[in-house]
Amino acid sequence: MFDWLDVRAGAREKAGLRRRLVPRSADPEVLDLAGNDYLGLARDPRVVAAAEAAARRWGAGSTGSRLVTGTVDAHAELERDLADFCGVESALVFSSGYLANLGTLSALGGPGTLMVADEYDHASLIDGLRLSRSDRLRVAHRDVTAVAAALRDRSRRRALVVTDSVFSVDGDLAPLAELAAVCREHAAGLVIDDAHGLGVLGPGGRGGPAAAGIAGRPDVVVTATLSKSLGSQGGVVLGPARVVRHLVETARSFIFDTGLAPASVGAAAEALAVLRREPELADRVRASARSLAERLRAAGLDAAEPAGAVVSVRAPSAAEAVGWAARCAEAGVAVGCFRPPSVPDHVSRLRLTARSDLTARELDRVAAVLVAAAPARAARPIAT
Amino acid sequence: MFDWLDVRAGAREKAGLRRRLVPRSADPEVLDLAGNDYLGLARDPRVVAAAEAAARRWGAGSTGSRLVTGTVDAHAELERDLADFCGVESALVFSSGYLANLGTLSALGGPGTLMVADEYDHASLIDGLRLSRSDRLRVAHRDVTAVAAALRDRSRRRALVVTDSVFSVDGDLAPLAELAAVCREHAAGLVIDDAHGLGVLGPGGRGGPAAAGIAGRPDVVVTATLSKSLGSQGGVVLGPARVVRHLVETARSFIFDTGLAPASVGAAAEALAVLRREPELADRVRASARSLAERLRAAGLDAAEPAGAVVSVRAPSAAEAVGWAARCAEAGVAVGCFRPPSVPDHVSRLRLTARSDLTARELDRVAAVLVAAAPARAARPIAT
Ligand SMILES: Cc1ncc(COP(=O)(O)O)c(C=O)c1O
Ligand SMILES: Cc1ncc(COP(=O)(O)O)c(C=O)c1O
Repeated sequence: MFDWLDVRAGAREKAGLRRRLVPRSADPEVLDLAGNDYLGLARDPRVVAAAEAAARRWGAGSTGSRLVTGTVDAHAELERDLADFCGVESALVFSSGYLANLGTLSALGGPGTLMVADEYDHASLIDGLRLSRSDRLRVAHRDVTAVAAALRDRSRRRALVVTDSVFSVDGDLAPLAELAAVCREHAAGLVIDDAHGLGVLGPGGRGGPAAAGIAGRPDVVVTATLSKSLGSQGGVVLGPARVVRHLVETARSFIFDTGLAPASVGAAAEALAVLRREPELADRVRASARSLAERLRAAGLDAAEPAGAVVSVRAPSAAEAVGWAARCAEAGVAVGCFRPPSVPDHVSRLRLTARSDLTARELDRVAAVLVAAAPARAARPIAT
Repeated sequence: MFDWLDVRAGAREKAGLRRRLVPRSADPEVLDLAGNDYLGLARDPRVVAAAEAAARRWGAGSTGSRLVTGTVDAHAELERDLADFCGVESALVFSSGYLANLGTLSALGGPGTLMVADEYDHASLIDGLRLSRSDRLRVAHRDVTAVAAALRDRSRRRALVVTDSVFSVDGDLAPLAELAAVCREHAAGLVIDDAHGLGVLGPGGRGGPAAAGIAGRPDVVVTATLSKSLGSQGGVVLGPARVVRHLVETARSFIFDTGLAPASVGAAAEALAVLRREPELADRVRASARSLAERLRAAGLDAAEPAGAVVSVRAPSAAEAVGWAARCAEAGVAVGCFRPPSVPDHVSRLRLTARSDLTARELDRVAAVLVAAAPARAARPIAT
């Protein structure tokens, strides 16, 4: 039955698309520019202590669906905190950002709805579109005119526009304010995946919608993850109370899934509290990403201008990207390597992520290692 | 845009299908027969201590996709332990059982594949079928003849049969050995969701496939959750190494999702170690479910014969189920209440879950409370 899997594996191997699971290095000398712990909070002693305290208080698991035994006080408190921080009526915590996206899109869509999605949207949004059984249209990256045309010409009464805030591969920003205006003009809802925006963009890290001045609007629904800036695990949907109520009562990935583990709830809540006390963390990660990109461009590499924490550097080919990342790792700098099918345009990239706690010296070291390890064809004019 | 949500909410309200999030009671006097912590390990001090230790060692979050920075040694160890315990070549940990099911079905299926599913399969399997874009056929509950006919008459070369082991609503068992024989005869694969079987069925809790004598077969893939018997959070796929490799390289819900938090990995690993040392936990939970069902039937209630830990009791209507469960809660016994759309046959039920650590006195108390709180029409002859 499963012989065909070996054939496929052979083909991927030949195309240089083999993937392996390699445990993260425990070597403290390795500089991590591959993870999404943008504010350096995953290992913060306060956050870790909060995870421990929640496990002791509530147990290692939540023991059931959020609707049965899987909600403890800590879930409700985290939801209030997140809603308040982001300036929305209501929030709902899922066990992952992936399931938050699936639940939101499948509960808000359906056969009578048109969903318009950016072609670079995250995989979990695309899967959510598919599950929702809505009419679906993917438009060119960041193309507000195409979105407006799709909404204007639609035959469906209901419509949702679906976009990442910071796109996960290139780190560029969606035109959120423009999309919100177009949605309002055409009586459509706007769903924003702020996975890479929460804790990074906006005043004190209040996220992409806050930065664009559209937080808390009645026609905007925001999803996010607790696993990047907040250093934990889990997902959240932020929006009008009636949207959250609808998700509680109908979203399959909420109802039929075990609630988020107490330790992860506690960690995310403490990370949020730290961010409230130290709003400069968000400014620092953006500054650090920008200065990293400048250093790389100054050295002739094809680094995109980062909107948030993600710095993307184009590589000439998948195989060269793999080699480049491997040489960086040997030199003690861990970077992400994105190849098809994880890149929407089939261009392989190194993906570097800034952290609030990177020093200027560390940024210098990263840039030097990246340049020394670069394949011959990696310079800007060739790769574009 | 979202006005229609209020209309829908009103309709659910009228139909008695309102759902609310109520934090679990912290009152130690309340007997919990609603959660899925079958072995009582979620609050076991050893399991909680392991969660804490893992968070201290590795941080509160895994910080990235399993393929980037989201794998630590603990993930790899847990995978080896689970594979060894269940008697399979290889295991892969996901951030939830839900995402394990989505990833498995979408990676193993596709337009050239027929998937045959039991009509009572869990929501996450159904969503997985949809995402996989396979040809799909749902057959009557536990109907091996229908499965055989579907496989025999298929036009697709590749086929997968997809089933729960213990069905989540009624707690009855799929005919796993028969399904495996039929699959083999017709060169199809068998995917078994053992969420309610792992830790409960088979020798020492090795799960439904082990109980049926089909663990480790080259054409069987098992999925499970770490959030029920293992008292933690997360999901796992257990099967041939080439299936696991295929998932690592192609399953979207694995690749584009943050790895399971270290605390949850550590907790699940310790729960598994406890179960290995105390294999009688699995026998005890089954015995406790059976004696609970006997007590309820002796009192004239319509309780199904439990295959594992789940005891299902039919209620005459959704509204009566809600009232029944509420009266039980007032009397200090928490039970689950399943109504449409969470029941495949539109029959509402109370859902009770046994635990290894329930005493005979506690079982007596549960039965007495259930009977005293029962609506008039709940006796067996009427409800069937
Ligand atoms: C844009 C985006 N959305 C959603 C997710 C999924 O979030 P989670 O990892 O919490 O499932 C991710 C990454 O993991 C992401 O990058
Ligand atoms: C049969 C079955 N499969 C899968 C799942 C999903 O597992 P998880 O809660 O880990 O997402 C559940 C329940 O939660 C279940 O009952």
